[in-house]
Amino acid sequence: MEYIGPQAASACEALSDLCLRGGKRLRAALVSTGALCFRKPYDDKLLIDIGAAVELLHTYFLVHDDWMDGDLVRRGGPSAHAVLRRSHGQASGDAAAILAGDWGSAVANAWMAQLPLPPRTLTPVLTAFSRMQRDAVAGQLRDILAKDNDIELTYQLKTASYTVEGPINLGAIVAGATINDLRQIRRFAIPVGIAFQLRDDLIGLFGSTTTTGKPFGSDLRAGKRTAVAVCALERARGSNRRIIAETFGNPRASNRQLKEAVHVIESVGAKSLVEQRIVELLELAERQLRVAPVSAAGRKLLASAASALVLRSM
Amino acid sequence: MEYIGPQAASACEALSDLCLRGGKRLRAALVSTGALCFRKPYDDKLLIDIGAAVELLHTYFLVHDDWMDGDLVRRGGPSAHAVLRRSHGQASGDAAAILAGDWGSAVANAWMAQLPLPPRTLTPVLTAFSRMQRDAVAGQLRDILAKDNDIELTYQLKTASYTVEGPINLGAIVAGATINDLRQIRRFAIPVGIAFQLRDDLIGLFGSTTTTGKPFGSDLRAGKRTAVAVCALERARGSNRRIIAETFGNPRASNRQLKEAVHVIESVGAKSLVEQRIVELLELAERQLRVAPVSAAGRKLLASAASALVLRSM
Repeated sequence: MEYIGPQAASACEALSDLCLRGGKRLRAALVSTGALCFRKPYDDKLLIDIGAAVELLHTYFLVHDDWMDGDLVRRGGPSAHAVLRRSHGQASGDAAAILAGDWGSAVANAWMAQLPLPPRTLTPVLTAFSRMQRDAVAGQLRDILAKDNDIELTYQLKTASYTVEGPINLGAIVAGATINDLRQIRRFAIPVGIAFQLRDDLIGLFGSTTTTGKPFGSDLRAGKRTAVAVCALERARGSNRRIIAETFGNPRASNRQLKEAVHVIESVGAKSLVEQRIVELLELAERQLRVAPVSAAGRKLLASAASALVLRSM
Repeated sequence: MEYIGPQAASACEALSDLCLRGGKRLRAALVSTGALCFRKPYDDKLLIDIGAAVELLHTYFLVHDDWMDGDLVRRGGPSAHAVLRRSHGQASGDAAAILAGDWGSAVANAWMAQLPLPPRTLTPVLTAFSRMQRDAVAGQLRDILAKDNDIELTYQLKTASYTVEGPINLGAIVAGATINDLRQIRRFAIPVGIAFQLRDDLIGLFGSTTTTGKPFGSDLRAGKRTAVAVCALERARGSNRRIIAETFGNPRASNRQLKEAVHVIESVGAKSLVEQRIVELLELAERQLRVAPVSAAGRKLLASAASALVLRSM
């Protein structure tokens, strides 16, 4: 990147620093898991290249999302726009962060285009990759703009399709999965992905701040339409409803108010309803997995992945 | 897009409206021109699909650029973030505009992935497409952040590579161009692209506001490091320098001050130096075109395209 000059290259460096700073590498792991489900021989290096492109694509979304959500911390360090504001001021720093994300998207697509695959594999792999990109954007659009209560549609797009189904598909196609195989994987991946996001919401609301790495009650303060919050708002009446409404989307809600609201959300039954839904989705996914046309090793890995994703402790 | 709900879909509609509202369709025309330069038979529908993807990619950049530059008007109507701010408020509207652009990028890449091409053509076509994306971002990053005076490097990335070379390459590869052919097209495309941008700057500064569609002196007010402005700042001394400096990057510069500055930019010789450079670049491009290994019809079209792009009147 040196050729574009040190100031412009600082944006690309902010992206690359964030990408290499860590993260769970969940999506790259699911690419490999998807490949282990099928039997056509493949070069391991392919999976590494795809996994790297997927993680770069993910970093692009994190950079844009953090700017939209005003999050200044990511992966234990400053988010990209926080770094770039420091060097270039607020307006140019924000523009540079958006462009840093755009840069990551271009480079990830360039890597994918150069995979040494025959066209009957390259076209579906690239189609799956651009679909991940499209669904993640659609999910984030719903997160920001949608006023309806179909929270599971948002989760299907932003988590199940983008985070679970897409990565598994990429590996599965490389290892010879057919369209019918992918259809059956989808029946497993979508409920797992939705349950994963539901669990993530519960951890965000009821987990310790050391587990979440976010300030207590931040989703409530931000007015995020999570399933548990929407469910509680639907069920609560009278003073209970007022207690939640006073914190929801109120950046100045006090810690005491937030604690009270979290207590009400639990007492009106929203927490246990979401927990029931998680169990239901996980059971559905497990049933689908039992009949999915995947290798024994793949089935075992997918089952472990599902439990690990969905039954994380708080 | 209905499936993501009306509020979220409003962002995709803002993108699609802007894409279909017009524009010169310069890049799509250059895709076809590139194909006419070579002889391998191809399906015309391929060029239409590639041209559409290129115009969608371009719309994505316009949406992000307009937000960065604070431009509220584009193609004779409101820019995407202007539309979305009206429906969703400033913060959500801006986020929705960034996502609308991201959506366009994902869809354009999906279209490109599905082109019915053999891999020895698909891989170079997709690589050229992601390179256009990367170079446009790099050029915009330099536009916003770079403090050096290598303005032609910025123009090489944001205009010559992205607007001229990339589209010609896409058509040329489909019609059988080799790597060596592309190398020789580059020697023509880069000087044409730089000259096109230099002419665009002159029109922006000295042309009538009806031609430019922008307020008088807007590049000066915005402090854009155009070649003509940087050249004038380097050459002007004493009160002349002060007159330019008072308007450069000063959003409150008056029309009288701007007129005076434009007069000084001309009187210190910056306008005629840039005009000389345009002629020099066009002659270089024409020399390269004479020896390029392209069909007679293609050579004629490229020569007309070069004159049309570079010798536009003010």
